[in-house]
Amino acid sequence: MTRHILTLTCHDRPGLVHAVCGGLLDVGGNILENAQFTDPDSLTFCMRTVVDTSVDDPAVVQAAVAERLADTQANLRVRLESERPRVMIMVSKFDHCLVDLLYRWRTGALAVDLPIIVSNHADCALIAAQYGIPFLHLPITKAVDGPTSKPAQEARIKELIAEHRVDLVVLARYMQVLSDDLCEHLRGRAINIHHSFLPGFKGAKPYHQAHARGVKLVGATAHFVTADLDEGPIIEQDVARVDHTHTAEQLVALGQDTERLALSRAVRFWAEDRILLVGDKTVVFR
Amino acid sequence: MTRHILTLTCHDRPGLVHAVCGGLLDVGGNILENAQFTDPDSLTFCMRTVVDTSVDDPAVVQAAVAERLADTQANLRVRLESERPRVMIMVSKFDHCLVDLLYRWRTGALAVDLPIIVSNHADCALIAAQYGIPFLHLPITKAVDGPTSKPAQEARIKELIAEHRVDLVVLARYMQVLSDDLCEHLRGRAINIHHSFLPGFKGAKPYHQAHARGVKLVGATAHFVTADLDEGPIIEQDVARVDHTHTAEQLVALGQDTERLALSRAVRFWAEDRILLVGDKTVVFR
Amino acid sequence: MTRHILTLTCHDRPGLVHAVCGGLLDVGGNILENAQFTDPDSLTFCMRTVVDTSVDDPAVVQAAVAERLADTQANLRVRLESERPRVMIMVSKFDHCLVDLLYRWRTGALAVDLPIIVSNHADCALIAAQYGIPFLHLPITKAVDGPTSKPAQEARIKELIAEHRVDLVVLARYMQVLSDDLCEHLRGRAINIHHSFLPGFKGAKPYHQAHARGVKLVGATAHFVTADLDEGPIIEQDVARVDHTHTAEQLVALGQDTERLALSRAVRFWAEDRILLVGDKTVVFR
Amino acid sequence: MTRHILTLTCHDRPGLVHAVCGGLLDVGGNILENAQFTDPDSLTFCMRTVVDTSVDDPAVVQAAVAERLADTQANLRVRLESERPRVMIMVSKFDHCLVDLLYRWRTGALAVDLPIIVSNHADCALIAAQYGIPFLHLPITKAVDGPTSKPAQEARIKELIAEHRVDLVVLARYMQVLSDDLCEHLRGRAINIHHSFLPGFKGAKPYHQAHARGVKLVGATAHFVTADLDEGPIIEQDVARVDHTHTAEQLVALGQDTERLALSRAVRFWAEDRILLVGDKTVVFR
Repeated sequence: MTRHILTLTCHDRPGLVHAVCGGLLDVGGNILENAQFTDPDSLTFCMRTVVDTSVDDPAVVQAAVAERLADTQANLRVRLESERPRVMIMVSKFDHCLVDLLYRWRTGALAVDLPIIVSNHADCALIAAQYGIPFLHLPITKAVDGPTSKPAQEARIKELIAEHRVDLVVLARYMQVLSDDLCEHLRGRAINIHHSFLPGFKGAKPYHQAHARGVKLVGATAHFVTADLDEGPIIEQDVARVDHTHTAEQLVALGQDTERLALSRAVRFWAEDRILLVGDKTVVFR
Repeated sequence: MTRHILTLTCHDRPGLVHAVCGGLLDVGGNILENAQFTDPDSLTFCMRTVVDTSVDDPAVVQAAVAERLADTQANLRVRLESERPRVMIMVSKFDHCLVDLLYRWRTGALAVDLPIIVSNHADCALIAAQYGIPFLHLPITKAVDGPTSKPAQEARIKELIAEHRVDLVVLARYMQVLSDDLCEHLRGRAINIHHSFLPGFKGAKPYHQAHARGVKLVGATAHFVTADLDEGPIIEQDVARVDHTHTAEQLVALGQDTERLALSRAVRFWAEDRILLVGDKTVVFR
Repeated sequence: MTRHILTLTCHDRPGLVHAVCGGLLDVGGNILENAQFTDPDSLTFCMRTVVDTSVDDPAVVQAAVAERLADTQANLRVRLESERPRVMIMVSKFDHCLVDLLYRWRTGALAVDLPIIVSNHADCALIAAQYGIPFLHLPITKAVDGPTSKPAQEARIKELIAEHRVDLVVLARYMQVLSDDLCEHLRGRAINIHHSFLPGFKGAKPYHQAHARGVKLVGATAHFVTADLDEGPIIEQDVARVDHTHTAEQLVALGQDTERLALSRAVRFWAEDRILLVGDKTVVFR
Repeated sequence: MTRHILTLTCHDRPGLVHAVCGGLLDVGGNILENAQFTDPDSLTFCMRTVVDTSVDDPAVVQAAVAERLADTQANLRVRLESERPRVMIMVSKFDHCLVDLLYRWRTGALAVDLPIIVSNHADCALIAAQYGIPFLHLPITKAVDGPTSKPAQEARIKELIAEHRVDLVVLARYMQVLSDDLCEHLRGRAINIHHSFLPGFKGAKPYHQAHARGVKLVGATAHFVTADLDEGPIIEQDVARVDHTHTAEQLVALGQDTERLALSRAVRFWAEDRILLVGDKTVVFR
């Protein structure tokens, strides 16, 4: 038996679950897990199903379901559970999220392939080497009164994404704002970790903002990257309790634990096809 | 349109979801929520579905699904979402859980009917009166060297459950151990709150045990009542952080917040048919 | 022996703890608890001490410490631990925080006196009556194109605060913005509960804002009231996990649990003199 | 100015804080942080103070305080804040806690020295090498019907502790029970991480026990090592929410996050002299 993961979003109407299950039954499928949700505002139907069948080609399974669905607008996808998404990690100098993702990858807790790590700094090269992942240093330079190399750097990133057949880009504390064009190119397939409990403390130095404000909890937010900075659909959040004794620097250190947890969960959810986009919000079938 | 809640547990086999959805489609049903889980150890299939249909009789919906299922062993039930389970609360002297449940009931957060409150003490009579719920004082007495009135008291409780068509009994800090017979009679329809993070600190005075042990978190556990004391299937748990400055009495006070939250969630889950029993464990579709 | 609570804020300098302890020793004091913190930005020294002594007059204890301190700028206060602060609760229609505070007051978990409850609506009169607390309905009216009664209402509130010797005003979901003048009058002695995780979702309908944004945690913030709306020093925060299945109305219901917990803790901290103000931030000796 | 950390436990009596502060004032000390607690059961006075002074020798500071205290039974210690405790990590095959500690050490979040890592298996040698820490493989062997090498192995561990002037031993998932003798030798200076929320699920395979019991939260407990297995004084605990969908293996993976957090906090508390032992319990000045 082969295990497949099916995801579907489409406009709601009666009979959708029945149609999907009928299609799965047509290929001898046995449903192991099934989660479903209809967004009441947009009437978007969302579904994630894990199914066992003797058919080992997901395209065959998908075709069987598509025929029953008969909805050309439906966003339907079937993949093998064993298929590992290809993830490009981008990072700058802070390496705590990178190390955490690499550790989970090595132990098998994060079932993805890591073809390449890209950074605008050279600092993380050694860590990448220790885990045996190719590391590419793509700095962004700027001549005095002259042009920046950012467009060229982003063009190279796009090439790498194509070359390495990258499914997901993870900004693991990559401290450069992506251009609107690259954001659009990566729509729905780039996850960022912001080091605050959004929408509080957008922008730079959120822990210092949090310290100045005297909050009693700090947090981190994993979200999809959009051109609207720190406004992309939220995937996962986490918080930690703090108090008056913590300096801004200690908030940075404490907050790193919440960043690690929120980001690694978001990437795992993505890798397991648990995240569906509905407008500006996410449906996460945990 | 009328909204129904369907719950099903049965032995797993291919086509179950398709059969259920087919039955629902036969009565013009549109599925709004659907959660499903197959327990890998026992191969028990568990399903909870919320469905809209023009049929307003749940028996008709249930018959349509049962016909498609064709499984006489299946544990299938369809009810109206608007149907309010009838809950008997039992309490002794501590009233924090009682007050919390009554408050949630009054504000509509807990969609149940409360036909009667039973206590082995008279203390909570005033609170019951303030919320307009009949209160019955059923003390347990014991003559010196003589018999206890407990069998008679429990017989009266059984009568009350029948008279008031009680669906669920909630032991909201009822400090009497129920007889094995009554536990069996209430199998799957009596929820207790234990004031510790089970399986730690079973038995009496758990907060004092926790204090003596110097734990850094205290908790509460809502579970189904079984003859095996504090060993019934766990429904919900919650914890609160404590430290060395807390006396045992302060742990009692702090822990009451976790008791309230864990018990009220468990009762709400039950009232919304979100809890399915699989062996000694619960499946909770949150 | 009589138990006193000492609190002190002053500019930091060597010998402060020694001076305080010397003063306490002069009156035969034995220190039971002592917490201390120096804010590195403002160099403000903060201290809270619980002391047993045979002297039963806190003024005598305070004078002994003041003499040793010899700092006329110091903000020093000694009170009996058994002295119960007098708290005026203000509320509108949502009563969950009110009921929670009243319950904790009745069981002794909140060691305060409640001389009066004030509301701009009549809804909570019955609850106040059930707990035996005087309830005053002070509506705010506004003639068409005419003046509002708000200045007169606030003048009456000021009178009540004086008449009832109120130490602390608690805005337990009081849905009127206080005037700048009243905010200033109540500086450091009025606590509000805001139903969001500040600084996210300031202003009206925060749960609806949170729902629209698709956050994965909602929260509540207890803070001192200042003229700058929702910007006062934060005392306590709490959060609860939510997901895509929650409607805005369900966020409201879920969030009420975090509001209750955050507000009741903040009031208890205040009642136990655990909160010291340093600029726009709080030091909370938990 | 030099920063010192003072810790003190002794029998409670009036004047203790004054005596300590007097001694600190005698060496021109300015107290920056001060935490204090008197255990009401044993009347043990506990204190931790951070002080700035121009004296750079902690022995001089300690002598000044000791003279004022005049209590030969007092457990008094003064150290430089900048002094880094020397920690020996012991590990078996699971490396998640080891990697976490090494990462925090490398980034400076954990201010300790790591002279040596000891393991009864060879698996973690590469990780130790990547961080540049000497790794010693000390297997325990057992001849058929013959003696075990455990006494010899433990003797070697004792030697290493002496050779490397080890202050603290951290059992970062070291899966061997220490002999009573070694436990006694390491009293108060060996921390273990147990992968359950103690006192629930003592002994082997706690996650499998938790899975079988159907708990809704799993946890981890950092505690001092004692001859009484899993019964040593608890230092720190953490929990994570789980549900029916988690297999025992997934509980293992999820629980590793709580193990990492609880253990790293416990080690940091110890390194900062925040943990005082009172009988079988800990006072942790966070």
